[in-house]
Amino acid sequence: MEYIRTPFRGILNDVRGRAACYKQDWVGGILSGFGILAPTTYIFFASALPVIAFGEQLRRDTGCYFLSSSRSPKVDIHTYGSLSTVETLVSTALCGIIHSILGGQPLLILGVAEPTVIMYTYLYNFAKEREDLGQKLFLAWAGWVCVWTALLLFLLAIFNACAIINRFTRVAGELFGMLIAVLFMQEAIKGMVSEFEIPKAEDPKLEKYQFQWLYTNGLLGIIFTFGLLYTALKSRRARAWWYGTGWFRSFIADYGVPLMVVVWTALSFSIPSKVPSGVPRKLFSPLPWESSSLHHWTVIKTPAANIYCRIKLQDMGNVPPEYIFAAFIPAVMIAGLYFFDHSIASQMAQQKEFNLKNPSAYHYDILLLGFMTLLCGLIGLPPSNGVLPQSPMHTKSLAVVKRQLIRRKMVASAKESIKQKASNSEIYGKMQDVFIEMDCSPITTVVRELEELKEAVMKGENPKDTFDPEKHIDAYLPVRVNEQRVSNFLQSLLVAASVSAVPAIKLIPTSVLWGYFAYMAIDSLTGNQFWERLLLLFITPGRRYRVLEGVHASFVESVPFKYIATFTIFQFVYFLFCFGVTWIPIAGILFPLPFFEREAHALGNEEGEVEMCDAEILDELTTSRGELKVRTVSFNEEKTTQVYPEGAVQPE
Amino acid sequence: MEYIRTPFRGILNDVRGRAACYKQDWVGGILSGFGILAPTTYIFFASALPVIAFGEQLRRDTGCYFLSSSRSPKVDIHTYGSLSTVETLVSTALCGIIHSILGGQPLLILGVAEPTVIMYTYLYNFAKEREDLGQKLFLAWAGWVCVWTALLLFLLAIFNACAIINRFTRVAGELFGMLIAVLFMQEAIKGMVSEFEIPKAEDPKLEKYQFQWLYTNGLLGIIFTFGLLYTALKSRRARAWWYGTGWFRSFIADYGVPLMVVVWTALSFSIPSKVPSGVPRKLFSPLPWESSSLHHWTVIKTPAANIYCRIKLQDMGNVPPEYIFAAFIPAVMIAGLYFFDHSIASQMAQQKEFNLKNPSAYHYDILLLGFMTLLCGLIGLPPSNGVLPQSPMHTKSLAVVKRQLIRRKMVASAKESIKQKASNSEIYGKMQDVFIEMDCSPITTVVRELEELKEAVMKGENPKDTFDPEKHIDAYLPVRVNEQRVSNFLQSLLVAASVSAVPAIKLIPTSVLWGYFAYMAIDSLTGNQFWERLLLLFITPGRRYRVLEGVHASFVESVPFKYIATFTIFQFVYFLFCFGVTWIPIAGILFPLPFFEREAHALGNEEGEVEMCDAEILDELTTSRGELKVRTVSFNEEKTTQVYPEGAVQPE
Repeated sequence: MEYIRTPFRGILNDVRGRAACYKQDWVGGILSGFGILAPTTYIFFASALPVIAFGEQLRRDTGCYFLSSSRSPKVDIHTYGSLSTVETLVSTALCGIIHSILGGQPLLILGVAEPTVIMYTYLYNFAKEREDLGQKLFLAWAGWVCVWTALLLFLLAIFNACAIINRFTRVAGELFGMLIAVLFMQEAIKGMVSEFEIPKAEDPKLEKYQFQWLYTNGLLGIIFTFGLLYTALKSRRARAWWYGTGWFRSFIADYGVPLMVVVWTALSFSIPSKVPSGVPRKLFSPLPWESSSLHHWTVIKTPAANIYCRIKLQDMGNVPPEYIFAAFIPAVMIAGLYFFDHSIASQMAQQKEFNLKNPSAYHYDILLLGFMTLLCGLIGLPPSNGVLPQSPMHTKSLAVVKRQLIRRKMVASAKESIKQKASNSEIYGKMQDVFIEMDCSPITTVVRELEELKEAVMKGENPKDTFDPEKHIDAYLPVRVNEQRVSNFLQSLLVAASVSAVPAIKLIPTSVLWGYFAYMAIDSLTGNQFWERLLLLFITPGRRYRVLEGVHASFVESVPFKYIATFTIFQFVYFLFCFGVTWIPIAGILFPLPFFEREAHALGNEEGEVEMCDAEILDELTTSRGELKVRTVSFNEEKTTQVYPEGAVQPE
Repeated sequence: MEYIRTPFRGILNDVRGRAACYKQDWVGGILSGFGILAPTTYIFFASALPVIAFGEQLRRDTGCYFLSSSRSPKVDIHTYGSLSTVETLVSTALCGIIHSILGGQPLLILGVAEPTVIMYTYLYNFAKEREDLGQKLFLAWAGWVCVWTALLLFLLAIFNACAIINRFTRVAGELFGMLIAVLFMQEAIKGMVSEFEIPKAEDPKLEKYQFQWLYTNGLLGIIFTFGLLYTALKSRRARAWWYGTGWFRSFIADYGVPLMVVVWTALSFSIPSKVPSGVPRKLFSPLPWESSSLHHWTVIKTPAANIYCRIKLQDMGNVPPEYIFAAFIPAVMIAGLYFFDHSIASQMAQQKEFNLKNPSAYHYDILLLGFMTLLCGLIGLPPSNGVLPQSPMHTKSLAVVKRQLIRRKMVASAKESIKQKASNSEIYGKMQDVFIEMDCSPITTVVRELEELKEAVMKGENPKDTFDPEKHIDAYLPVRVNEQRVSNFLQSLLVAASVSAVPAIKLIPTSVLWGYFAYMAIDSLTGNQFWERLLLLFITPGRRYRVLEGVHASFVESVPFKYIATFTIFQFVYFLFCFGVTWIPIAGILFPLPFFEREAHALGNEEGEVEMCDAEILDELTTSRGELKVRTVSFNEEKTTQVYPEGAVQPE
C-alpha cells in the first residue's frame, strides 16, 4: 500500500535510470554498424506480418470486406468507420517510433495485437446497433474509450501499479509466453483450415470459390504453410551448418526467415495461368491512396500544423453523454489488458538470463503508453501496446549480434597470442581484457562469468582437449545483449514504409502468413523454461543423460526430478485453465485475468505458497542460466556406426 | 588368363565354402526369433514397391495400358503378349525363393530391375514390328533371348569370370551405388512431375484429366511424396529419439517406413468425395485373376506335374530360325548386364565394413542366375537379378538386428557385474565373453575390435567419465551382421503373397511410391564413402573438426585432405560421365559398361594407375571402417546458449 502513498516515485526512478544510459542507447546502436540490420529486419517481419494479419481480421470483422474488395462508389460512406491493415500498420509505426525515441525500455516492441482487434470488433458491433452512434460515430466513440483508457493508465503509472510485476515471477512469465505461442499456433492452424473455406462476407459465386478451386487453394495452402515453416526453421539455424562460407551462413541465419517469406511469395507466382486469380488466396487490403482508405482521413487545421486525422474532433462532441460514460466500462478492460500485456512483454524482453545491464522502466512506459493510446484514440487509430513474442525475440536476436561481435574479437586476440606462443594464462588474460573492453559490466561479474572459459583455456596439459578458440569461446561465452534504441527505431520506420508498400504486401499469400505464425510460435518457445521442462517430462529416463550432455539450465542437475515434475505438471494444469479461458466467447481478451488472480492467491493459499517457493528455487537456480552450461562427452546414437540404416545422410 | 584354364574352380570353391555354413544359415536365422521380422518387412517393402513400379512401367510400355484399364473384351488377345505388375512380382518371388534356398550369398536380394524393363520394352517393340513375330510370339522370342542369356551366364560362371570382381574395387562399387541412388532419385522426381501430366495412352477426355483435377492431383502428389519422404526418414531414426519408451522407439525404427506407406495411403482416402475418383492417382494393375491376366497363363501337362506357363512351349518352335539367332545379340547385352549387376549387388551386400564371416559365392551365384533366367524365359516371365540398393540395405538392417541382440546381452552382463562391485577388468572380461559367445569370429580379432570398448571401461579413475554400459557399449560395439537365409526367404514369400494382395496394392497412390523411391535413394547413400567424401569437400575448413567429432571413416584423419579432394573430384567427374551414359536413349541399360572399360584402363594407362593406387590407399585405410570410430568432445553450436534464436525447440 505504501506504493499509493508515494505517487510518481516509480516513474521518477525509471526516468532517472534510463536518462543515465540514454545517450549510450543511441551511440552504442550506431557504433554496432550494419550488424544491427539483421535483428532490425528480423523483428520488422516478426512485428509487421502479424499486424497485417490482424488488420485483415479487423477489416473483415468491421464488415466492409466485401464492398471495398469490389470497388463500388458506396465504399466511401460504408467504410467510413472501418479499420483495416493500413490503420493497424500506421498505428504500429507511429507508436513504435514514439516509443523507440521516448520510451523507457527500448527492447520492448509495440504493435496492434489480437486483444485490441477483438476489443475494437466488440466496440464496432456495439456502436453499429445504436442509431444514435452508428458506424459514423464509431471511431469518435472509440476515441472516448481511449481517453478513459489513457486516464486509467496514467493512474496506474502514477501510483506505481507496476510494482506487481516484481511479484509476477518468471514462472507466470513463461506460462504467459507459452500461452502466446499456443495462441499463435492456433491462429496458424485455423488459418490453414480456413484456406479450404469460403471467407465469410465473400461472394460464393466467384469462380475461385467453386469447389475444385477452393480445394486447390487449400492444398496450396498446406504446401506454402509447411514450406515456409520448414525452410524458416532450417535457415534460422544456418550458423550451425557445416556447409557454405561463414558469411553466407550468418547471412542466411540473419536474413533467412524474411528471405523465405519472399521466396515462397515468389513461388506463388509459378502457379499456371489457367488457375483463376485469387488462388492461392492473397491478402485483401485497400491501398492507402484508394478512396476507400483516403476518405478515412480528414484534416484539422491547427495554428501549429495540419493534423491528419481519421475523425473530426467535433464528432467526439457529438457522441451522446451517456455513451461517453458507458465508454468507461470497455476502457477498464482495455486498460487492464494493456497494463498487463505491456508490462509482461517488457519483462519478458528483460529476462534474467539475458544479463541486461540497463535498468527497467515499467512505470514510465505505462505512462507513455497512456499518451500513445490517447493520441491513437484522437486520430482514430487502434492503439498499439507491447507485444509478445516479438519483444523477447527482439532481445534474443540482439544477443546474437553482440555475441558475434565479442566472439570475433576474442577469437582474434586468442589466435594472435597463440601465434606468439603465449602461455595459457596470458592468452586468457588477453581475452578477458577484450571482453571487458566490449562490455560495461563490473569486472567481478565478468571474472565470475568467464570462469568456465578460463578453465577451458587453462587445462592445456591434456593434449586431446587443448584450447581451441573457435570451439571453446563459442561454448563458454556469457550472454550479452546489444542494448540500444536504433534497431527498434529502424524497424518502426520500416513498418511506416510498409504502409506505402501495401501493393507488395498484397502479393503475399495468406498461407505464407500462417506458416510464419507457426514459425513464430515455435521460435518463441526457445529458452522458455516451462516448455523445456515439459519436454523433459517426456524424455525417457534412459535418455535424460542426453539433456545433461547438451547445454541445459542448471536446475536440471540441482532440483530433484520428481520436484521438477510435480511443479511442471501443476504449471501445465494451470496453463490449460488459462488456455480454456481464451475460448470463452467474449472473454477472449480476458485471458490475462487468471494471471492476476494467480498472483493474488500465489501469496494467499497454501498451494500458491508451495508453487511460489518452487518458483523461487527455480529462479534462484536459473539466475545465471545464460552462462551456466554443463557438458559431458556427447554420444550421438544416430552416428554410432556408419552402417546404421537410420543414419541416413542429410544436407543439414 | 589362367582362370580359363581352370574351369569350374570358382564354382566348386563357392559351393564348398557355402556348404560349410549352410546349416547355420537356417539355424541362426530361426534362433534370432522375431527380431528377424524387422529386416524382413523392411526389405520386403524395399524390394516389392520398386518391382510394382517397374511392372507398372513395363505394362505401360508394352502398350496395353489403355485397354486393360478399360475392361474391353479385346483385352485378352490384345494383352496376350504383355507384361505387368503381376508378372514382375511373380518373377521376383520365384527367383527370390529359389535364391534364398539354393543361392550362394543369402544377403543378396533378387528382383526385376529397371534395366530388365528397358530391355524387355525394346524386345517388345522389335517383335511388334515384325509380322512373322508380332505380339503373339514376343514372349516366345524373349524366351529364346533368355536361353542364350542363360548359356552365356553359364560360360561366365564356369570360366571364373567373376574374378574380375576382385579388381572391381570399393571405389567403383560406391561409384555404382551412388549412380543407382541418383537414378532412383531421378525416377522419384520424374514421377512427381508426371503427376501433373496425363499419362500417355490414357483418355484425356476423362474428368480426372481436366486441368483443375490434373493440377489438384499434382499438388496432392507433392504433399504425399514429401510427406512420405520426411516421415520415413524421421521414423527410420527413431532409435535416437529422446521420447517414447525403448520398445516403441525401436518398433518405429524397425517398421516405421512400411508403416508410413500405409499411413499415407490411408490419408489418401481423406480426400473429399467431390474429387473425382483417380485423384490422387493410384496404381493401375490388372488383378491376377482377371481375364486380362489369367489368359496369360497356359498349362503344360508334363509327366511330373502341371507347369503353369505364360507361353506354349511349341510357340518357341514357331519362332523363325533367323530370329532365334538374332536373339543372341540382345542376349549378349543382358548377360553382360546381369553378370555385372548381380555381382556388384552381391559385392555391395558384403562390403568390408560389414565384417562378414561367411565366404562369398560370386561364381556359383552367376551359375544359379543362369538357371533362373532360363526358367523365367521358358515360363514367359521377365527374369530377376541381384538388385541395388536393396541388397546392401538388407545387410545394413541385419547388422542393426545383430547389434541390438549383442548390445542387450552385453549391457545386461555389465550391469550385473557392476552390481556385484566387480573391478573394471572383470566387467570387461565378462562382456568380452558374452561377445565371443554370440560371435563366431576368432578371438584375436574380437580382442582387437573391442580394444576401444576396453579402454572406455578401464579409464575408471576419472569420475567424470566413468563407464556407462548404455552409452559406451553403443559407441564402441563393432559391427556384426546376422548372416542367414530366413529373412531373404520370408521376404520372397511376402512378395509371393503380395501377388494376391494386388487389390490392396492398387490403393497405394503413385505419389507415395515416388516418395519411397526418394527415401530409398537417400537411405542407400548412408555409409557410401564416395558420398561422404563429396560432402566433406563442401564442409568449410573451419567446420571440418565437426566431422572428427562425430563417427567417421579413419581415412579422414590419415589421408591428407588435398589428396582426398583430388581423388574425389576425379571420381565425381567419372560419375558424371557414367550418369551421362544413362541418358543416351537406347543405352540406358549400357551404363555399366563404363565400369568395365574403367576396370580395364585402371590397369592400363597412368591416370588409372594413380587412381587405383588412391583407391588402394583408401581401401587400406577403411578396411575396418565399420569398427574404427574416433571421437572428441562434441560442441554443438546450435545448443551453445539457450538464448540463441536458431536453437528453436523441435519435436525430434
